[in-house]
Amino acid sequence: MKIEIISTGDELITGQILDTNANWLCQQLFSQGLQPQRLHTVADNLNDLVTLFTEASQRSDIVLVNGGLGPTSDDLSAQAAAAAMHVPVELNQAWLDVMKQKFAERGRVMAKTNIKQAMLPQGCDVIDNANGTACGFSFTFNQARFYFTPGVPHEFKHMFSTQIWPDIATRFALNNKLVQYKITTFGLGESAIDALIQDVTIPAQLHLGYRTASPEIEVKLISSDADIIKQVAQQIEQKLADYVIFTSDESDSSAEKIQHLMLAKQATLALAESCTGGMIASSLVAIAGSSGYLDRAMVTYSNQAKQDLVQVSADTLSSHGAVSEATAIEMAQGAKLSAKSDYALSVTGIAGPGGGSALKPVGTVAFALATPTETYSQMLVLPGKNRTMTRKIACAIALDMLRRHLQGLAVYGHYDFAPKWQAH
Amino acid sequence: MKIEIISTGDELITGQILDTNANWLCQQLFSQGLQPQRLHTVADNLNDLVTLFTEASQRSDIVLVNGGLGPTSDDLSAQAAAAAMHVPVELNQAWLDVMKQKFAERGRVMAKTNIKQAMLPQGCDVIDNANGTACGFSFTFNQARFYFTPGVPHEFKHMFSTQIWPDIATRFALNNKLVQYKITTFGLGESAIDALIQDVTIPAQLHLGYRTASPEIEVKLISSDADIIKQVAQQIEQKLADYVIFTSDESDSSAEKIQHLMLAKQATLALAESCTGGMIASSLVAIAGSSGYLDRAMVTYSNQAKQDLVQVSADTLSSHGAVSEATAIEMAQGAKLSAKSDYALSVTGIAGPGGGSALKPVGTVAFALATPTETYSQMLVLPGKNRTMTRKIACAIALDMLRRHLQGLAVYGHYDFAPKWQAH
Repeated sequence: MKIEIISTGDELITGQILDTNANWLCQQLFSQGLQPQRLHTVADNLNDLVTLFTEASQRSDIVLVNGGLGPTSDDLSAQAAAAAMHVPVELNQAWLDVMKQKFAERGRVMAKTNIKQAMLPQGCDVIDNANGTACGFSFTFNQARFYFTPGVPHEFKHMFSTQIWPDIATRFALNNKLVQYKITTFGLGESAIDALIQDVTIPAQLHLGYRTASPEIEVKLISSDADIIKQVAQQIEQKLADYVIFTSDESDSSAEKIQHLMLAKQATLALAESCTGGMIASSLVAIAGSSGYLDRAMVTYSNQAKQDLVQVSADTLSSHGAVSEATAIEMAQGAKLSAKSDYALSVTGIAGPGGGSALKPVGTVAFALATPTETYSQMLVLPGKNRTMTRKIACAIALDMLRRHLQGLAVYGHYDFAPKWQAH
Repeated sequence: MKIEIISTGDELITGQILDTNANWLCQQLFSQGLQPQRLHTVADNLNDLVTLFTEASQRSDIVLVNGGLGPTSDDLSAQAAAAAMHVPVELNQAWLDVMKQKFAERGRVMAKTNIKQAMLPQGCDVIDNANGTACGFSFTFNQARFYFTPGVPHEFKHMFSTQIWPDIATRFALNNKLVQYKITTFGLGESAIDALIQDVTIPAQLHLGYRTASPEIEVKLISSDADIIKQVAQQIEQKLADYVIFTSDESDSSAEKIQHLMLAKQATLALAESCTGGMIASSLVAIAGSSGYLDRAMVTYSNQAKQDLVQVSADTLSSHGAVSEATAIEMAQGAKLSAKSDYALSVTGIAGPGGGSALKPVGTVAFALATPTETYSQMLVLPGKNRTMTRKIACAIALDMLRRHLQGLAVYGHYDFAPKWQAH
């Protein structure tokens, strides 16, 4: 079966945004055992769209078109589809009514320009959009079934999963579903992972791939045979041991894994963050139900805040500095005390680009984990090339210390990219 | 001038990696005033590649091909290029010698399979690769100039910048660099913006576009004439008035704009966050130099934390609830007091999916801004469909209140998507 994906939009052609929608669509298709023959990206240009739709209609079975369904004049997908098929666009009264109702529910009056979003190629089928005012639509043109969706990611994904894929599966009687299993690791580079698992035999029916989701790396196993996946996964997880932070059968993110572990222990957590500046807290709060174990976080950005909120002593700050294991330890212990929590994590470091010195270069970050019985600490030198990436790695290391402790593993992992800090 | 970009590789078609190379190339071209007509992504399949190369050769002036130059059997770009032109591939002795030397320098022996990387379409020009063993190559086929590069990002980028772009600029005598200007807005949907600026005349030499960077919307002006951009921008900014949160000549993000305003006032800020859970702090800390005004943030997730850290009274919590203007006001005032800061912002709300009620549905969020002289507060009902998006909008509204105050505008904006909460 031949599939093409067409993404439209000047913001793609000018490189302003990455086409994550097409990438997601490829993943969805691949998980069903399908691969598109071609992906296209075209600008918001009527002639180019008409030409491409016509070409695609003559060589493919399925054409998925994303973008260009907004209310503004540079949204041309419906008009181009109609022009390619030599039919008019016409008002779809049913969708106009839905739109008016959506606006009314939000206490708003629909602007006249929005009517454009109910002007569809004559004879097409409407695809409902539960999350927005741009409906999708589908039709058969020459040999291909076309599906049009808006470019807003959460609208598009929901429409594909709930309506378009079921329609495709029925229409083309598909059932060769692939199973995908992900092992998410932290602390090793791709080649180090590769070296560790080189003795694992990969059967021909199984596809092994890597995906970097900085700073984590996912090892993906894909096959139509769930048993083979299970068997190979077991061997790989054994080889990668404590670098595995979670697998796709248990959670979707490091924060979710932490939540599972904390709730299972019925324990509570407090945070004291400096250079991460709330990033750890925010990543944990992203998971619904985090209030079940997270009590509070103190973003102690200034030295005064470190003294006020988590009782770091002025002595420690002046003799060891704000970025030191001594300060991190007092931050974690102070946070634990403030919240009367079972655990506390702290991070203090130099995210850059300024603030580094010969002794403590940009990327130097101290961590502490206070547990019910003791406090662990370490100071590492993270790759300090980029402020955001340094903070993300710091966030990952802090959570990794907690995960390791909760799983009964060594608290201090060896991280390929973050050697221990050493006073020269 | 017509340009196409062709990316090859199964890892793109299966969605395993995002095509950041094509995106980078689009950015490079755009900065030179050029836009490709089409981007294609194709699998490692000989027939598909030959067909596409042939088509592109007949309609474009420049074709940039990325990927498929490795030593393995699924790397087919050179073979496909030769087949399309009906010429043989032949050994390029000069590049083979370079490769052998590269291996020797690293103390390695070249595997026989690598010879494939010196087998190039007859008559092509070699493009040197300073960072790897896969050379690029270029040739003219029908009306188009083709440039082939390997997919490894740093190899490809270096080759494009140092050899391919200079060749294109010379060959096509290019010098029409485009200027881009962005007006970032918050509070209005795309159609509302469109309606507000409909009276502004857009000259033919100027391209106007929208980009949604949820929850913000960017209005983009692109032209080779900086004066025209300036003139139109002025009119649009006047129409959009206080919905404009920043423009590209002053900052790159809302957080950076806040930083500019706060540093200019030499004022300090504290935060008390509940449902946003550190997201506001983290977004501000992302900007280097934020320690110049941000003193601390308290993520008061539990009721106890609200009492301990920002002195919300137990009475207020029991009579008004944690999600109320009364609580938000005490949070902001308590944060300001704790930090002895000039300003404080607070947010407390129901991010969902659980925790909503008939009176206070998911998405109900209370905000307060404490200034040196008074405290402002409001409670709004945000679209509560997605926990992360609700938190992002809450973050944006809190920062918008501060920005508006610092700019001398009304603190309470009218947000299309977030009506005031009303006790029924």
